[in-house]
Amino acid sequence: MENTPNSAERGPDSALPANAGSPPRHNSLSSANGKSVGFVLVHAGAGYHSESKAKEYKHVCKRACQKAVDRLKAGAQAVEAVTAALIELEDSPFTNAGMGSNLNLLGEIECDASIMDGKTLHYGAVGALSGIKNPVLVARRLLVEAQKGKLSAGRIPPCFLVGKGAQQWAAGHGIPPCPSERMATKFSMSAYRRNKRKMELAEKVETERCHVKRGRQSNDSDLGRLGKVKAMMAEEEDDAACLDTVGAIVVDQEGNVAAAVSSGGLAMKHPGRVGQAALFGCGCWAQNSCNANPYSTAVSTSGCGEHLMRTMLARECSSALQAEDAHHALLETMQTKFIRSPFLASEDCVLGGVIVLRCCRCVETSSDIQALLVEFLWSHTTESMCVGYMSAQDSKAKTHISRLPPGAVAGQSLAIEGGVCRLGSKSD
Amino acid sequence: MENTPNSAERGPDSALPANAGSPPRHNSLSSANGKSVGFVLVHAGAGYHSESKAKEYKHVCKRACQKAVDRLKAGAQAVEAVTAALIELEDSPFTNAGMGSNLNLLGEIECDASIMDGKTLHYGAVGALSGIKNPVLVARRLLVEAQKGKLSAGRIPPCFLVGKGAQQWAAGHGIPPCPSERMATKFSMSAYRRNKRKMELAEKVETERCHVKRGRQSNDSDLGRLGKVKAMMAEEEDDAACLDTVGAIVVDQEGNVAAAVSSGGLAMKHPGRVGQAALFGCGCWAQNSCNANPYSTAVSTSGCGEHLMRTMLARECSSALQAEDAHHALLETMQTKFIRSPFLASEDCVLGGVIVLRCCRCVETSSDIQALLVEFLWSHTTESMCVGYMSAQDSKAKTHISRLPPGAVAGQSLAIEGGVCRLGSKSD
Repeated sequence: MENTPNSAERGPDSALPANAGSPPRHNSLSSANGKSVGFVLVHAGAGYHSESKAKEYKHVCKRACQKAVDRLKAGAQAVEAVTAALIELEDSPFTNAGMGSNLNLLGEIECDASIMDGKTLHYGAVGALSGIKNPVLVARRLLVEAQKGKLSAGRIPPCFLVGKGAQQWAAGHGIPPCPSERMATKFSMSAYRRNKRKMELAEKVETERCHVKRGRQSNDSDLGRLGKVKAMMAEEEDDAACLDTVGAIVVDQEGNVAAAVSSGGLAMKHPGRVGQAALFGCGCWAQNSCNANPYSTAVSTSGCGEHLMRTMLARECSSALQAEDAHHALLETMQTKFIRSPFLASEDCVLGGVIVLRCCRCVETSSDIQALLVEFLWSHTTESMCVGYMSAQDSKAKTHISRLPPGAVAGQSLAIEGGVCRLGSKSD
Repeated sequence: MENTPNSAERGPDSALPANAGSPPRHNSLSSANGKSVGFVLVHAGAGYHSESKAKEYKHVCKRACQKAVDRLKAGAQAVEAVTAALIELEDSPFTNAGMGSNLNLLGEIECDASIMDGKTLHYGAVGALSGIKNPVLVARRLLVEAQKGKLSAGRIPPCFLVGKGAQQWAAGHGIPPCPSERMATKFSMSAYRRNKRKMELAEKVETERCHVKRGRQSNDSDLGRLGKVKAMMAEEEDDAACLDTVGAIVVDQEGNVAAAVSSGGLAMKHPGRVGQAALFGCGCWAQNSCNANPYSTAVSTSGCGEHLMRTMLARECSSALQAEDAHHALLETMQTKFIRSPFLASEDCVLGGVIVLRCCRCVETSSDIQALLVEFLWSHTTESMCVGYMSAQDSKAKTHISRLPPGAVAGQSLAIEGGVCRLGSKSD
């Protein structure tokens, strides 16, 4: 099935500042062939993706799209396809999810993940989960089990489990454990050592600063030491902003949407810290169209968990996408509900990114074709965000590392891009 | 300071069905005296409060109100006062929070709690926390620490911690551990044994049912056994609906609002299960007035955690309370965003309750009095809800067990009541 990009398509590098006009559009108009249709958009995180690792990030996004599309082609529903994409993203040692997750203060891996089914509006989530290779599998199983209804004696099944209890529940539901040492990678271990050194340096700077402040006559030697320590810290900055939470959003042939997100959390986080990836409304959102909402919407977020939690960004984006102009709605949401959110008034650097899609059915009366119009966008305030997307009618995924425009300040401005995809299928 | 109930006040027992008109109003008009002012509304849970224990529930609500008011009179801000109320509620062996919490499947106590400051919009939460007498103290400390800004090396402080990590963080911040055996009470232990028996019975019924179904010719003896087991279960029903999460909402003399909630979670929950009490937007909400919002609002919820999470009830109520008529807004929210929420479409019994307040300043031009008008309401779909409220100018708290009207079906209809309190203070 060929993919016919619209001639008006602009290059993927034209990231826009916060006040930019219309987005560049990655258009793919797929004609109908009566086969299964569907669409997936994935992200390998909003953070900083070095040029040297760009290829790896793009590769994993491509593979994740392919896995989701394989499932869609086999007739799977959105929830199953989005899980398949997530497993691929979690299994990559380059992403901060599942295998290769950031290590916490004690050098352990604790993962957050959640999934939402736009059809049933059920949600499953795990937080601070150790020893499971694919946290999304536990989140999904929680969703599936909750959909079955009550447990014995009328007990309500859980939708959110954390820590050791979550691990035990997974084991009880046939999800095998994975030794922690297998989940850490060379890359995550060396990042841990660098971060630990950075923390020690930072604490040294603080001590030095106190010495200078504490009424002691500062002398050249004091100030010299302080400067030296600061310089050492600056050298370490480069690797700091790696927040590569992963996620995916899918629409299946029936027009159902699903969303998922998975994260190893912030590097050097306190044990037990849970971020947005586990939180309802914060990490992902999926909601089929209904009387009140003309569009089905799906959202997955990435970035600094505390910022995404306190702004409930996934749900905010989903609500906003019911407006007429999706691009304008997302732009405004990122500006007023994220960068300038009253919930983050004390933050001068608000870091995050989202992938969103919305879709609606449109029957083309001139033929027997019932099309599904999918509008998809990504936006981020971080230096970069890696995304991939593919329709079930495409032969391969497109991938892209979106970057802030030159001169834009991360945490204060944003990039926004997107496209449209028309999925056709013979109406019944 | 006397409390002058409005002559139009109707009795507190007039709970209304979902389609009822105006609520009965517990009016207290406190005249100005230039002293500190403030108001607190607490709940000891939406669930089922037996007549025999009504006195105890009312007592603890009264004490909790008094503690908050003591703090307000001493000049404390809303966050500090709401914490004081919560500690009292947690310390009661009769409530399902802190001391005396429900035991989980393994007979352990794991608590959820959160707190929100309407002034800074900061939020702190703990989930599945064991071995801490007052989980709200950890949530509050997380809020306070997060307000101080970044940790060393630019790390973002956590706002949500779970499990062992949360316990370790608490210890590191001077919050003493409490042996689990001290937190369980006679009452919680006997409830655990009853619930365990109930589960065993339920599983026996299920096995019997399978036997009968599995093509085996059912005979009188089979059906007889099934009937017997069912009858045994029915006897156990009475104690089942005890969901007594506790919470409080406060407005202080400066008009700041704060909200908090604390819960031992559902009885016989899976270890690691986290409910609404820990979740942003679900357990509590507090937001001072701002350009966009004319009212400061505070909300605390209680009931079935999964229902309250998936409907994000606290935040929904807060948004709705910006409408002109608070009572109508809450009634509609409880009906359309809770009982008939599309998120709970598969549930035939939606259990929960909320306490809400909203306030705004009104300057009385005829005098030098600047008044704070506080409207407060409670609503629940559970059999009953125990509340208490008090202004800093009252000599003692009022308490009340609100019950569904006769014939109303829990989980499908609701009760709603409330009042108004005018807090006066000399303007500067």
